[in-house]
Amino acid sequence: MMKITSVNNDLVKDTVKLQQKKYRSEKFLLEGYKCTKEAFDAGIEIEYAFVSENKAERYGFLKDKIILANDTVLKKISTTESAPEIVAVAYKKTYDLSLLDKAQKVVLLEGIKDAGNLGTILRTSAAFGIDAVVLTGESVDLYNPKCVRSSVGNLWKIPVFEINDFEKIKKIFGDFCTIATLPHADKNLKDFKVKYPCLIMFGSEADGLSRQMVDFAKESVKIEMQKNVESLNLSVSCAIILYELSVFSSGASY
Amino acid sequence: MMKITSVNNDLVKDTVKLQQKKYRSEKFLLEGYKCTKEAFDAGIEIEYAFVSENKAERYGFLKDKIILANDTVLKKISTTESAPEIVAVAYKKTYDLSLLDKAQKVVLLEGIKDAGNLGTILRTSAAFGIDAVVLTGESVDLYNPKCVRSSVGNLWKIPVFEINDFEKIKKIFGDFCTIATLPHADKNLKDFKVKYPCLIMFGSEADGLSRQMVDFAKESVKIEMQKNVESLNLSVSCAIILYELSVFSSGASY
Repeated sequence: MMKITSVNNDLVKDTVKLQQKKYRSEKFLLEGYKCTKEAFDAGIEIEYAFVSENKAERYGFLKDKIILANDTVLKKISTTESAPEIVAVAYKKTYDLSLLDKAQKVVLLEGIKDAGNLGTILRTSAAFGIDAVVLTGESVDLYNPKCVRSSVGNLWKIPVFEINDFEKIKKIFGDFCTIATLPHADKNLKDFKVKYPCLIMFGSEADGLSRQMVDFAKESVKIEMQKNVESLNLSVSCAIILYELSVFSSGASY
Repeated sequence: MMKITSVNNDLVKDTVKLQQKKYRSEKFLLEGYKCTKEAFDAGIEIEYAFVSENKAERYGFLKDKIILANDTVLKKISTTESAPEIVAVAYKKTYDLSLLDKAQKVVLLEGIKDAGNLGTILRTSAAFGIDAVVLTGESVDLYNPKCVRSSVGNLWKIPVFEINDFEKIKKIFGDFCTIATLPHADKNLKDFKVKYPCLIMFGSEADGLSRQMVDFAKESVKIEMQKNVESLNLSVSCAIILYELSVFSSGASY
């Protein structure tokens, strides 16, 4: 088994680059046991993995992909405060757009900036049976390590598409019931009846949905709340709406 | 107006201490314009505030509490990555337990560890008309700067009590409809009817509610979700349940 203890090693240097979005066109980082195991179990292909010398026996499933490393190397290549026992390099998963042909419930996120929010929304979307998630606008990277962590393994359970061409979005979702979530929407969530297939659209944390997306929406919905509170956290709004649509409008039973 | 440019100044050193929980028995930090303004507007007493030299005109409302500072000082006393234009020192707000006598909806959080979760839950609780929040067990500090930020000013709109004595909790809430939120509860949220006054109890991110708290509950409730998803983020679960109870069980109109 190969062993690397110097942060000047070329493979260490290449791995560190994956902390930056610009180097993550094909590959990304998995940090920690849970994160790596969940991705592996979901069929994510792992290229190689730096594993703490005394933890190798836990990673039998990675076979010859294991490279032993010390804490200095693990700390260098990881993005967390304390060094995890494993940092793996994995290949990104891509999905064919034709998957959207049969989708009944799709979430669109425009310009989402917080990696923790994105990961949490993917986890919630998987929990409530969303068929796919679309990212558009200037968005945080799906493979940002914080997003991967916050999704707690659910990033692999739901197809995610990055579609920045608005004409393409119009073409794919033109026949969907497009729903804008807005603070001053026409309808309260509790009175809202959804039609399928639907595209539920959420805007960025700071600015909400763009004019273009609001115009594209056939319906709009808001969450009723106390007047002295301005807004909710984005992943919280998203969760309330996705839960509500899953339980009350579709009659789905779990 | 006093001006401080050295990080070795005694007042700077005293202020830096407030980054640590053990020094926050009476006072805490407010960082950034929005955070400070919201606390000020809510009547939080500010002792003094370090303000960036060229931003002082924005802080007229703080009058003689302003101390001019350079970026080096602001960076030193703040907990954020980039230096904010203001860091203020404020006095903690305390509430009388008698406020709970008239409470109809109270949230209890046991051993919550993530400051972002706590701040988000306070924001959501204020949005859905919760009368008070109780923290118990080994919990993150309410005045942790990240919690203050995540609450987005809502920390001041809702009374929060720290009650670590379980006998006291039993005495205060003995007659409440005590509800445990559990992954394997008897009832699904959509079939749940709440009685008032109620105490809605959430456990820690990693371990959920303790045996003691589960035994104290008269009812339990779970959120229905897809079988291949293990759980939801704590602030997401909390939001779905508080929204549901506010809209569907009380018939409250906003």
